[in-house]
Amino acid sequence: MRLQELIPGLEIYSVPSGTKVFDWTVPDEWNITDAYIMDADGNKVVNFANNNLHVVGYSEPIDEILDRWELETFIHSLPAQPDAIPYITSYYRRRWGFCMTHNQRLALKDGLYRAVINSFLAPGHLDYADLLIPGESDQEVLLSTYICHPSLANDNLSGVVVTAALARWLQSLPRRRFSYRIVFIPETIGAIAYLAKHLDHMKEKTIAGYVVTCVGAGKRFNIISSRQGNTISDKFAALATYSTPYPVIKPHLYTERGSDERQYCWPGVDLPIASITLDKYGEYPQYHTSLDNLEFISQERLEASLELYKTCLQLIDFNRNFKCTTICEPFLTKHGVYPQTSPSSVPDELNVLAYCDGTNDVYDLMLKSGLRGEDTILTLNKLLEKGLIE
Amino acid sequence: MRLQELIPGLEIYSVPSGTKVFDWTVPDEWNITDAYIMDADGNKVVNFANNNLHVVGYSEPIDEILDRWELETFIHSLPAQPDAIPYITSYYRRRWGFCMTHNQRLALKDGLYRAVINSFLAPGHLDYADLLIPGESDQEVLLSTYICHPSLANDNLSGVVVTAALARWLQSLPRRRFSYRIVFIPETIGAIAYLAKHLDHMKEKTIAGYVVTCVGAGKRFNIISSRQGNTISDKFAALATYSTPYPVIKPHLYTERGSDERQYCWPGVDLPIASITLDKYGEYPQYHTSLDNLEFISQERLEASLELYKTCLQLIDFNRNFKCTTICEPFLTKHGVYPQTSPSSVPDELNVLAYCDGTNDVYDLMLKSGLRGEDTILTLNKLLEKGLIE
Amino acid sequence: MRLQELIPGLEIYSVPSGTKVFDWTVPDEWNITDAYIMDADGNKVVNFANNNLHVVGYSEPIDEILDRWELETFIHSLPAQPDAIPYITSYYRRRWGFCMTHNQRLALKDGLYRAVINSFLAPGHLDYADLLIPGESDQEVLLSTYICHPSLANDNLSGVVVTAALARWLQSLPRRRFSYRIVFIPETIGAIAYLAKHLDHMKEKTIAGYVVTCVGAGKRFNIISSRQGNTISDKFAALATYSTPYPVIKPHLYTERGSDERQYCWPGVDLPIASITLDKYGEYPQYHTSLDNLEFISQERLEASLELYKTCLQLIDFNRNFKCTTICEPFLTKHGVYPQTSPSSVPDELNVLAYCDGTNDVYDLMLKSGLRGEDTILTLNKLLEKGLIE
Repeated sequence: MRLQELIPGLEIYSVPSGTKVFDWTVPDEWNITDAYIMDADGNKVVNFANNNLHVVGYSEPIDEILDRWELETFIHSLPAQPDAIPYITSYYRRRWGFCMTHNQRLALKDGLYRAVINSFLAPGHLDYADLLIPGESDQEVLLSTYICHPSLANDNLSGVVVTAALARWLQSLPRRRFSYRIVFIPETIGAIAYLAKHLDHMKEKTIAGYVVTCVGAGKRFNIISSRQGNTISDKFAALATYSTPYPVIKPHLYTERGSDERQYCWPGVDLPIASITLDKYGEYPQYHTSLDNLEFISQERLEASLELYKTCLQLIDFNRNFKCTTICEPFLTKHGVYPQTSPSSVPDELNVLAYCDGTNDVYDLMLKSGLRGEDTILTLNKLLEKGLIE
Repeated sequence: MRLQELIPGLEIYSVPSGTKVFDWTVPDEWNITDAYIMDADGNKVVNFANNNLHVVGYSEPIDEILDRWELETFIHSLPAQPDAIPYITSYYRRRWGFCMTHNQRLALKDGLYRAVINSFLAPGHLDYADLLIPGESDQEVLLSTYICHPSLANDNLSGVVVTAALARWLQSLPRRRFSYRIVFIPETIGAIAYLAKHLDHMKEKTIAGYVVTCVGAGKRFNIISSRQGNTISDKFAALATYSTPYPVIKPHLYTERGSDERQYCWPGVDLPIASITLDKYGEYPQYHTSLDNLEFISQERLEASLELYKTCLQLIDFNRNFKCTTICEPFLTKHGVYPQTSPSSVPDELNVLAYCDGTNDVYDLMLKSGLRGEDTILTLNKLLEKGLIE
Repeated sequence: MRLQELIPGLEIYSVPSGTKVFDWTVPDEWNITDAYIMDADGNKVVNFANNNLHVVGYSEPIDEILDRWELETFIHSLPAQPDAIPYITSYYRRRWGFCMTHNQRLALKDGLYRAVINSFLAPGHLDYADLLIPGESDQEVLLSTYICHPSLANDNLSGVVVTAALARWLQSLPRRRFSYRIVFIPETIGAIAYLAKHLDHMKEKTIAGYVVTCVGAGKRFNIISSRQGNTISDKFAALATYSTPYPVIKPHLYTERGSDERQYCWPGVDLPIASITLDKYGEYPQYHTSLDNLEFISQERLEASLELYKTCLQLIDFNRNFKCTTICEPFLTKHGVYPQTSPSSVPDELNVLAYCDGTNDVYDLMLKSGLRGEDTILTLNKLLEKGLIE
């Protein structure tokens, strides 16, 4: 698997079909070798070989001759986006269908068609990949992304790529305070299967985390809140966005969620997991269509997302309650951190320091001093180095 | 008593004059047989027999001949509402007086008048009616209304009528979770006397309740907050108003109270009692005048108030902290509560379910899911039936 | 010392140079007998004898002949305020310098100048004055002001004058619930030295307090919040301002602090100290210049500040959690505090009384009843006198 080449140590695990995972059962594995609609002249008017979105996911095998009007009932297209093939699945209701652009559909002539889907559903495996990048503490920060949408670039090849880049960056760091868990899973059933296997461990160790999705295209950053809404994942996601040049939308409530934070935050699971996306799933016209392709995403957007997630993880890794070491203000001149002449206002160092009373974490210090994330970290590092906080 | 015919089981109790009730004493009973002002020609220019508002409540007996100018000092009228007889009482200062329309007053001619009030104040009783409609729990919801304003329709025959209808409706229900206490009392002294007798019981059992008054006329619903301001009475009153087609005003602070929530919420009593009214007492021009008559109130308004109180009591009766029974999302398809194709957004069932973590009551679930009261109850009932919450 | 004549019992204390006070050391004492710049003609173009702002505070002794262009590097002036001599100090970096108006500077001609400063820095003392005005309780309210700015009227002769007046007023009161500690100290090092000596006592006893500074000039009152931001010092400062006819600015955050609240609120010290000023230090053009003189301040402003501080201290001294003595409303007619005829709305007495449940202090009662400070105190005193609260 390509990801294993990129991320040393990434392991692949399999869960057999039929395994009970909480209220769910891992379904049989669906495979498809070929599918097409052939007209009376023997032309394949749509062909799975050209674009795997042409077949409704999980379609039953079929080989039938149908009149055009019969065939129409098995076709999905988007009249408002006549050049887009929709992405449709039917995991749990047995049926079959084809997806095509609306223009393709309009070009169909009356007559007979042969619809062929060579698929089979049989016991198999649900695969996922998992890696723990160890830190000084065994407390973990989770990065989870999903790998189940074939052919769609922003949703969610972008999430896979940014998560892989974050894993490589985390591995390259000289030290990490926390451990980082990187998970690549199919959405929903994969997260549920993963949690069924690791629930106790996750509940004990996970202190923060994000679902990484839709990070390659769009104009604005979105935060999807955790169910609790005030975890450090939520707080530092919000503060990290102060550092991006892109516009940022007010955090979405958990009721507007849509990916695996659904499972990670569920009552009884209760992990502190939020999500940062660029334009949010369901809110851009290319969503779940063939237009969500490599031209839709850009390197610039992927890098902006990567930077934002890096800032966010740095803040979390650095976060703690600092305490100043002096009673009354320190004599800053002595410690070499004070301007030589009387300043006209209180210097930033003193404002950060004044709130280092052991009750404020970096989030609180940022809010109370009014400094940005990087400046707060710089200031705290300077004060740490001078022994003025601990 | 008419109410006993309407409400089976309603009992009438009497407290003798002179009984000490906290800081107060039950006063002597005032009765009046006849009162009028007669002019020199023997015409009764005002007559208690025509409208009992013509005499200041608790007036002393009198039979005097007065010159018009002397008489004027004992007359109350409303120049700004020349066709309205004001409703005036003087419970604790001994005096006498007549009330009339301002037009009647202007028609008085110079000359001598005979003022007659055949009233007497003597030891008697303060009467009130009380009924407990039992439920599965002995915790009680209170409905209290006052019966002391003679001849006024909205204030407070409307409250008496709506409370009676609520009592009948509660009695008709196949099951009630809570018990319901229905109280008809004179305002202020009646509530104080009632509390003096039942304080310990009320403090132990009462979990919510309302003072029902001014519910027969007006354009908008008003909530008068309890002293604490955040009891379930306050919360469900606010949420119940989402379901009425009438406009609703922002809840009034307790400082704007005016009826027996004054006593029920007093420090040391501390019951969680709020009030829902249509146009609030003191804020409509017919208030405390003869214009607050049967023409002023309407069946439509009485029914709207009844419906609102019913919604409110249903929410309270249904309210508890639900807990979902699955770890991770349930497999809704299996339980028959999920749309067949992927929905574009999270369905309401899942949003309600996601917050059923044992810490949220129905109020919290309404706020967090954004659903209306009835829809939340419908959804919760569906989830209960499927065994997805408990 | 003049202050001792004004304030009986005020004691002066000395801390020797070299004493370690937390992270600081009490510096040597700087004294100056004479200083001037003399031109080639023997004219003293600036002379310390005329205005002691002419020399940079803590200047080293010097007696040198310099060319005008050399001299310029030792001169401070304000081009934007050409008639103001700036006030400059250099406590901890050894150097020397002269301050003059910009017009004086522009009048300097080319040529040689003799710069003379007869100063010496030698072990000495840091002096401060301290007084405890005892009350019924040994809990203390602190008033602290600084005495280290030579020649400046608003900053901070005004603070010294108002503090002295407050001390005299407090001494004149027939009773004080709390004890009042009055402190006159040099800013920063004085507060640190004072705290080094009295920290445990201050932490144990101090329940509120203010730094009194810049109270003689300006258009609007400013509150500088304590670090905690919600102490009774903050709350009653805000409420006291309801009673002044002057405009009041929204309280400044602690990050905008600038005087000895820096030390009093520091982590580990944690005293509940705020500050009330008229135009805030650093925000008026006369700040730290020779224009901050006796003409800049006015008796009217000093009196307005005195009144505001008095209201504030009265509120703090009066503050407690009152509890009403009756269950249900009291029968106010009996107690002589109720209007004879039914009022159209709930009287203030009842609104204050309704919240006297033992959990609300005077601040809460003011907020909840909507009354101003004086009116709340008047009402509470009336209720106390009638025995309706305790």
